[in-house]
Amino acid sequence: MKTKIGFIGLGNLGTPIARNFIEAGYHLQVYNRTVEKTKELDQDNITVCHSPAEAANGVQFIVTVLSNDTVVTQTTTGEEGILKTLPKGAIHISMSTIAPDTAKHLSQLHEQAGSRYLTSPVFGRPDAAAAKKLWVCLSGAQEIQEAARPLLESTSQGIFNFGEEAGQANVVKLAGNFMIQASMEMMAEAYTLTEKFGIERTAVADFFGSTIFNAPIFKNYGKLIAEHKYEPVGFTSQLGYKDASLVAKLSQESQTPMPLVALIQNRLLTALAKGRSERDWAEAFGKGVSNDAGL
Amino acid sequence: MKTKIGFIGLGNLGTPIARNFIEAGYHLQVYNRTVEKTKELDQDNITVCHSPAEAANGVQFIVTVLSNDTVVTQTTTGEEGILKTLPKGAIHISMSTIAPDTAKHLSQLHEQAGSRYLTSPVFGRPDAAAAKKLWVCLSGAQEIQEAARPLLESTSQGIFNFGEEAGQANVVKLAGNFMIQASMEMMAEAYTLTEKFGIERTAVADFFGSTIFNAPIFKNYGKLIAEHKYEPVGFTSQLGYKDASLVAKLSQESQTPMPLVALIQNRLLTALAKGRSERDWAEAFGKGVSNDAGL
Amino acid sequence: MKTKIGFIGLGNLGTPIARNFIEAGYHLQVYNRTVEKTKELDQDNITVCHSPAEAANGVQFIVTVLSNDTVVTQTTTGEEGILKTLPKGAIHISMSTIAPDTAKHLSQLHEQAGSRYLTSPVFGRPDAAAAKKLWVCLSGAQEIQEAARPLLESTSQGIFNFGEEAGQANVVKLAGNFMIQASMEMMAEAYTLTEKFGIERTAVADFFGSTIFNAPIFKNYGKLIAEHKYEPVGFTSQLGYKDASLVAKLSQESQTPMPLVALIQNRLLTALAKGRSERDWAEAFGKGVSNDAGL
Amino acid sequence: MKTKIGFIGLGNLGTPIARNFIEAGYHLQVYNRTVEKTKELDQDNITVCHSPAEAANGVQFIVTVLSNDTVVTQTTTGEEGILKTLPKGAIHISMSTIAPDTAKHLSQLHEQAGSRYLTSPVFGRPDAAAAKKLWVCLSGAQEIQEAARPLLESTSQGIFNFGEEAGQANVVKLAGNFMIQASMEMMAEAYTLTEKFGIERTAVADFFGSTIFNAPIFKNYGKLIAEHKYEPVGFTSQLGYKDASLVAKLSQESQTPMPLVALIQNRLLTALAKGRSERDWAEAFGKGVSNDAGL
Repeated sequence: MKTKIGFIGLGNLGTPIARNFIEAGYHLQVYNRTVEKTKELDQDNITVCHSPAEAANGVQFIVTVLSNDTVVTQTTTGEEGILKTLPKGAIHISMSTIAPDTAKHLSQLHEQAGSRYLTSPVFGRPDAAAAKKLWVCLSGAQEIQEAARPLLESTSQGIFNFGEEAGQANVVKLAGNFMIQASMEMMAEAYTLTEKFGIERTAVADFFGSTIFNAPIFKNYGKLIAEHKYEPVGFTSQLGYKDASLVAKLSQESQTPMPLVALIQNRLLTALAKGRSERDWAEAFGKGVSNDAGL
Repeated sequence: MKTKIGFIGLGNLGTPIARNFIEAGYHLQVYNRTVEKTKELDQDNITVCHSPAEAANGVQFIVTVLSNDTVVTQTTTGEEGILKTLPKGAIHISMSTIAPDTAKHLSQLHEQAGSRYLTSPVFGRPDAAAAKKLWVCLSGAQEIQEAARPLLESTSQGIFNFGEEAGQANVVKLAGNFMIQASMEMMAEAYTLTEKFGIERTAVADFFGSTIFNAPIFKNYGKLIAEHKYEPVGFTSQLGYKDASLVAKLSQESQTPMPLVALIQNRLLTALAKGRSERDWAEAFGKGVSNDAGL
Repeated sequence: MKTKIGFIGLGNLGTPIARNFIEAGYHLQVYNRTVEKTKELDQDNITVCHSPAEAANGVQFIVTVLSNDTVVTQTTTGEEGILKTLPKGAIHISMSTIAPDTAKHLSQLHEQAGSRYLTSPVFGRPDAAAAKKLWVCLSGAQEIQEAARPLLESTSQGIFNFGEEAGQANVVKLAGNFMIQASMEMMAEAYTLTEKFGIERTAVADFFGSTIFNAPIFKNYGKLIAEHKYEPVGFTSQLGYKDASLVAKLSQESQTPMPLVALIQNRLLTALAKGRSERDWAEAFGKGVSNDAGL
Repeated sequence: MKTKIGFIGLGNLGTPIARNFIEAGYHLQVYNRTVEKTKELDQDNITVCHSPAEAANGVQFIVTVLSNDTVVTQTTTGEEGILKTLPKGAIHISMSTIAPDTAKHLSQLHEQAGSRYLTSPVFGRPDAAAAKKLWVCLSGAQEIQEAARPLLESTSQGIFNFGEEAGQANVVKLAGNFMIQASMEMMAEAYTLTEKFGIERTAVADFFGSTIFNAPIFKNYGKLIAEHKYEPVGFTSQLGYKDASLVAKLSQESQTPMPLVALIQNRLLTALAKGRSERDWAEAFGKGVSNDAGL
């Protein structure tokens, strides 16, 4: 008989992760705010639930893939939240990008309830998730990291340990999102400069993306920015701005002056002020730099 | 009988390139300011020359790997410069990182003299040169790009064409150096932030360098910055500052506002002001950010 | 018989203001957290109170000069807060530098209680207060502005109306503090530049402060920064940083990219990170710029 | 009989200065590139000259009020330049805003020729010149400062000594222009912020310009920026950009990191890139900030 796990959050990233778990042999107690999304999963291997509490009932693992701090907190602590039913000793694997303080808070609540909280944000876009190629950052007690590892391996190509404190993997995740944004600013400036000298943006992007900057960030975003191709929208400027603001907050709390974060925040804020909050975040950088250059 | 080519500039990068050419079957007419450096090459396959003009005498290709605009110009146009002897139709392959305007100027002088100028700056450190793994950026007339290709292939893993104008490959090279500096700033800020939250700098650098930022720049400089290991000096802050200033100049000439360049210039200028101009440029970023954060 | 008013907050600024009111013929019901401070006032014209509620009892005006949002809110809404006793129709004149949202919130609470809230932050240091030379920024309903005017005139040289909404005068006050900080950054950069060229910092500061920049900000802070004289501490970097952060928050809420605010925030954050949070804010700018310049 | 002096440069600033000298009782040997401009002066008290050399012939003082380094240098050293005729011991009073290195160079040439060079840039717009209210910054040997003082007093309200070296008064002048530009950035940010909160820009500008920032810079430019009134053009963004670039160059030469200069340069460069180089420099700041804020 299959192992049952709870699963909450069938967004762009959550759905392929859920499919990977099913494929790995788990039976999922699934909850999603809009129930239609559950139809995209193999019906034989899921039980559709009507609350987080129902999804968490009787399982050893409950996975959440949600959009922000408020939703994760509400899903965990609400009237029909995870904490109402999650068995003692069970583990909440939280994959969302949230503030470290939120993670610490949730971790304490789990501890008080006799359950455990494992911070496990991931890097990778939906297609990487579908290909089981996510990168997972963990923080939490060593034994719960070990316990969760087999499950996480079924959706990722690598799992990294960033310590025992609940918030630490969140800091790494936010630092990574900052680095992605900084890379977009850098590429936008470099490609606009070369364009002004009569060199094709795409030739420059192809060159760097296949040589000294041959990493996914530069290949993928490099192409979007070089071609000014910002549709379909993968991640909005609004969300990018929230992440940048979270990083700015960490910078302030920890007294780490980060002038590049300030530059990024203002780049995104300009996009928001111009009514482009629902456009792709790459546009905020790509069009922002070109616009300042009179292009 | 072996084909003779001219070769000028036995610095850290020039020497392994010269060896690659010898290994590929060429005989080198070598000139270097300090003649001792020629002893590091296989004596059977070189002729030691006492001026650029002597090195350029009678060859179809003369390669220069020099440190800055002034030296390249002097070597080409001086009393005993390349232009005095280089045969009509022969090609000057110029690998130095210089301003596009200097390249244009040299190209015109060659044209007037009946010879040709091929802009061909390279990306890669000395060890990459030794392994024949440089990346070459070319700009110049199509036919001279084709003519030089076999020679350049013997020292590189890829050759890229950026157009017919002499200055264009220089712009790409400078844009790339800017991207490397921006990457160092980004890493220094990210690793210092995570350090403040109790996460090992090296764990963070390893993670990003082996996942979404798995490109040489992030692996190599990431390690130096994470470990605050700035010796031996690979490239000085003084030289990095000159490059950043060249990029700032291009930004101004072409009316491309590049706020990230300004940030980088001030980071390096601070290092210079504090007497660290001869230290590794990675230190300017790594120590600069840590210092501002009170570490 | 003298008119009674309430007065809360005998800090550096509050004490001289209280004295001005006494001199103008008012009797003060005074509350201060540390009761000793009340001894600095003319005992014949004050009644020492033991809670905000006691100070607000039976008066038409209650003036608060407090350090931050939390204290003002607590003083107004606490168990023994102003709202417990302030008569219907009476006016709370709030002189503190706080966020506009806090002012709006307090204004609504007063309205519900039948009393009124008048936002009235001031510009000027303690000596200006002692000389009755403060500048007052008002926002609130026209009639309460008029009602409070005679009282405010007894401590100021000018009163300015910024509209009917409770938060607006706070925005002006914060914008002004931003302009003061920006002026300090500007002076620190200019005087350090001229110093590097062998010109006396004080000669430059005197020149600008007595010619095209002959305003108090440039005279006063210009002297401190030119002489690197940061004692006694007038206003701490910690408090300056809080103000800058409030401005940054307004910038974000209102989608107004303000790159100069970001620069200021990082300048102050560097001072905090280096353990200088209790030093004068002028030092954060003056020493910060000099330090980056290797001086 | 009236004392004769030479005068070169009848621009917006030069013309009222020339009138002041005439009014003070001097007879002017005037040279201007377009001779028509000489008709604006009292014909009884001038001699129209056809070259700088002619204007400098036989005088003890030759005053130049020219637009940039190239023109000043050409006027001094050209075929028919000042140095050809200026008597030994005579003084060249140079009021232009130029680089300190240019001033040093010209000073040396004068010394070799037996004449003297006095650096004397001024602050003030044409109406201030007409009202004899310029501020003069001097550098040069003490005795020539003293000798020139009576003449300079006839057009100014104050004269300041910045040392014996030829370049020093230029550094102060450029630092002042930087401070003016920084003030415009600061005001544009502050007024746009307050505007977003529903407060009239002009009310805010009036308040600051008449209280803690009651200096000409804030009154005059504050009004222009608050009202977005950028015509007629007083000083172009193109010229402002050149000044900012000169300051950036001084910053680099002297190893003084000045992040605020970088911000200003990019603000002006954006205006240039958008085709607004001939518009008033206040627009670059005022419209630039508003545009980024989506207004």
